[in-house]
Amino acid sequence: MTFCQSLLFVLVLSAPSVLGQITTQKADLLITGGTVVTMDRARTVIDDGAVAITGDSITAVGPSAALESRYGSAKIINATGKLVLPGFINGHTHVPMTLFRGLHDDVTLDEWLHKYIFPAEAKNVNEEFVRWGTRLAAAEQIRSGITTFADMYYFEDAVAEETKAAGMRGVLGETWIDFPAPDNKSESQMAAYTEKFLQKWHGDPLIHAAAAPHSIYTCSRKTLEDAARLARKYKAPILIHVAEMKKERDDSEKQNAASPVAYLDRIGVLGSDVIAAHCIFVDETDRHMLAERHVGCVHNPSSNMMLASGVAPVPEMRAAGVAVGLGTDGPAGSNNDLDLMEEMDLAAKLAKITKMDPRALNAQAVVAMATVEGARALHMEREIGSLEEGKKADLILIGLDTPNAVPMYDVYAQLAYSLKASEVETVIIGGRVVMQGRKLLTINQEEAISKAREYKDRISASLRPD
Amino acid sequence: MTFCQSLLFVLVLSAPSVLGQITTQKADLLITGGTVVTMDRARTVIDDGAVAITGDSITAVGPSAALESRYGSAKIINATGKLVLPGFINGHTHVPMTLFRGLHDDVTLDEWLHKYIFPAEAKNVNEEFVRWGTRLAAAEQIRSGITTFADMYYFEDAVAEETKAAGMRGVLGETWIDFPAPDNKSESQMAAYTEKFLQKWHGDPLIHAAAAPHSIYTCSRKTLEDAARLARKYKAPILIHVAEMKKERDDSEKQNAASPVAYLDRIGVLGSDVIAAHCIFVDETDRHMLAERHVGCVHNPSSNMMLASGVAPVPEMRAAGVAVGLGTDGPAGSNNDLDLMEEMDLAAKLAKITKMDPRALNAQAVVAMATVEGARALHMEREIGSLEEGKKADLILIGLDTPNAVPMYDVYAQLAYSLKASEVETVIIGGRVVMQGRKLLTINQEEAISKAREYKDRISASLRPD
Repeated sequence: MTFCQSLLFVLVLSAPSVLGQITTQKADLLITGGTVVTMDRARTVIDDGAVAITGDSITAVGPSAALESRYGSAKIINATGKLVLPGFINGHTHVPMTLFRGLHDDVTLDEWLHKYIFPAEAKNVNEEFVRWGTRLAAAEQIRSGITTFADMYYFEDAVAEETKAAGMRGVLGETWIDFPAPDNKSESQMAAYTEKFLQKWHGDPLIHAAAAPHSIYTCSRKTLEDAARLARKYKAPILIHVAEMKKERDDSEKQNAASPVAYLDRIGVLGSDVIAAHCIFVDETDRHMLAERHVGCVHNPSSNMMLASGVAPVPEMRAAGVAVGLGTDGPAGSNNDLDLMEEMDLAAKLAKITKMDPRALNAQAVVAMATVEGARALHMEREIGSLEEGKKADLILIGLDTPNAVPMYDVYAQLAYSLKASEVETVIIGGRVVMQGRKLLTINQEEAISKAREYKDRISASLRPD
Repeated sequence: MTFCQSLLFVLVLSAPSVLGQITTQKADLLITGGTVVTMDRARTVIDDGAVAITGDSITAVGPSAALESRYGSAKIINATGKLVLPGFINGHTHVPMTLFRGLHDDVTLDEWLHKYIFPAEAKNVNEEFVRWGTRLAAAEQIRSGITTFADMYYFEDAVAEETKAAGMRGVLGETWIDFPAPDNKSESQMAAYTEKFLQKWHGDPLIHAAAAPHSIYTCSRKTLEDAARLARKYKAPILIHVAEMKKERDDSEKQNAASPVAYLDRIGVLGSDVIAAHCIFVDETDRHMLAERHVGCVHNPSSNMMLASGVAPVPEMRAAGVAVGLGTDGPAGSNNDLDLMEEMDLAAKLAKITKMDPRALNAQAVVAMATVEGARALHMEREIGSLEEGKKADLILIGLDTPNAVPMYDVYAQLAYSLKASEVETVIIGGRVVMQGRKLLTINQEEAISKAREYKDRISASLRPD
């Protein structure tokens, strides 16, 4: 074979991939050299792996060498020595409440609500409060590797605008409740606000607007039905607290002759668009109903412990086929932070001690709950939750050069029990780098922190007796 | 009054303090401008406060302005905008086990011990292993604000040398156990090793050498008595696991017709020099006995949850007057890290959910357990645990410029529930700065991490079937 022959041979062999690269395999960004924890169905982990991103989506996941030659023109982020995994999904929170973080803890829920939080909300919550609280929470969440969160609060349109500005993905529900709220004073106002909100964000790539009837103990049957009907008109999700408290379950048995889950089913609320937070008091019949109706459930271990609500039967729910995600709940009174890595650790440990069995919930299971199962709980499994071709490019890089990160025998054990949110270095949401080297690129963190300090003085003053 | 008269008046008035400064009030180091959380009996918190350090001890604690004028010549560390508090006390751990971190979790204790840890220890634990494991653990502990730890393992003299080199304070117990250990193969060898160890470190300012009979289920009565007798000969502390497992309690009732606590009392082991880890299965009689005998107890919430051991009755122990500290336990299989701030959070939340009462254990109580009560549990309350004149200068600075740190309504709630170990910026032990701006000054962190990765390969290979 002459030199020209061999050159021709090389050209012919490489032609398809060269063509492919030019016509269909262009990528904008290539994360390369990391340990890629895909969280795909086979739980594939790729050592020296890469993820190619085009626009807001993942184009390819595979060995670094293969992807580097295929996507040579892309901008590179070197992940050597780091973990690359899908962004964490915070399935339940109330982000503006960051501004009430630690306001008055260690009291009964009743005292906390009536003596502190309701007065504090009545005197302080307006649209500006919601904006600054959301911005602070977005900073905290991105710093801990959260790329998507589900929220329920007031002035939810302001939450949506701040979430969008931060470059985060959100399932954001305007709250319906049977008493005058800081934003809307009646059900008709809540309905009008929510309809406008759902219309405004329809089709947005990052924001999934939702309706959030608060719970069966704060909403009449009519409120629950109206909120669900409106959400369904716009194919929007329905966020609701379900079976969080023993009293809620006991009252429902008395008033509705049904458990909270059975009651919600009977009035037509349960469905594959519902995201149910907590689900602590759910018996075997309830669990099968939740699975059959394809309801997504969100477990909030910190909150449930802090408020002494009870322990959700997570292993049993998972065994029944229910999609169970993880949430931080609000950062005031019930946590008090927005760190899903701590929730992973806690979910596993709480299940173990409750069942008195160290096998009750393992490391891989809780990492799944924070990612791919969390996506399923939010009914977004086609969009997010794993690193697979076609999904949104929501991913995080975690550094491993700290003493607590070594040695690493098992990547899931390390994620669940040893690594910390502070080791999340880079966060990409929808292909956009929102944090790199722990520097936030979409939020002015100093300003958000400074505003929070101002709010502290204002809120403290508002609660002082005259 | 003429100018000269008034000058004289000023000189006379200020003379005592000037003299004082020169003769007795010299300080080497002044931490100034911070919010000083003293953890003294009155739980004094000083805004814009300062701590003056001379040699290895605290000379004064007070307002910055007063201390700055009194100790003008000292080296200054500016703590403006930061918390200053006593270093955390990790009351129970097995630091060399960092090298087994995450080796095989989520299995029963029996399987973990017999299938993984005992074979791994038999094949890998030697003095060099203990040195590198301790060095890695010292790095991790300093980074999370721990200044004192109590340890039980093998080759404890190597643990002591590494602890001393890292500049940490340690209560370090050589393990006695009724089977051949990696270092000593018989009780007489254990006795000889321990006696030499106690003699060598006697009077050391940082290292308190101790004897550590493992537990009542791994030590015969003779072993327990011999270890206690030897420790008492040198006025050294006695470290032991007590009532960690239900089987231990049940077996003791059968074999000794007494609870583990009552049995230890009967054979003369209990006393004001004993540090008892876990104390889960302790009834009301046991708790009063622990209090009467001035035994220190150490609660390990992560470990107890992870291994599904049970929940220690912490509020009841505290109510009975028992000194209860906090521990991480070993970083393998039972945690898997060395982060006392997480243990504070967990201790409060675990007590709340167990009692179904959010008031069961509050933020200030768990901060005390990690500091001043932890010191009492180690029988070191005259030496460490609070920022007070005459105590050792063991203190830490925590930054507050992160989103999770604000707003701050209550400093104890923030410490227990919102702040993270990664926010510990500066650590001082016995007046020596061992970390500043998160840079370790006494340990080559990169080398320790790199060694841990080497050990991972070696240990994994040692466990593969031939």
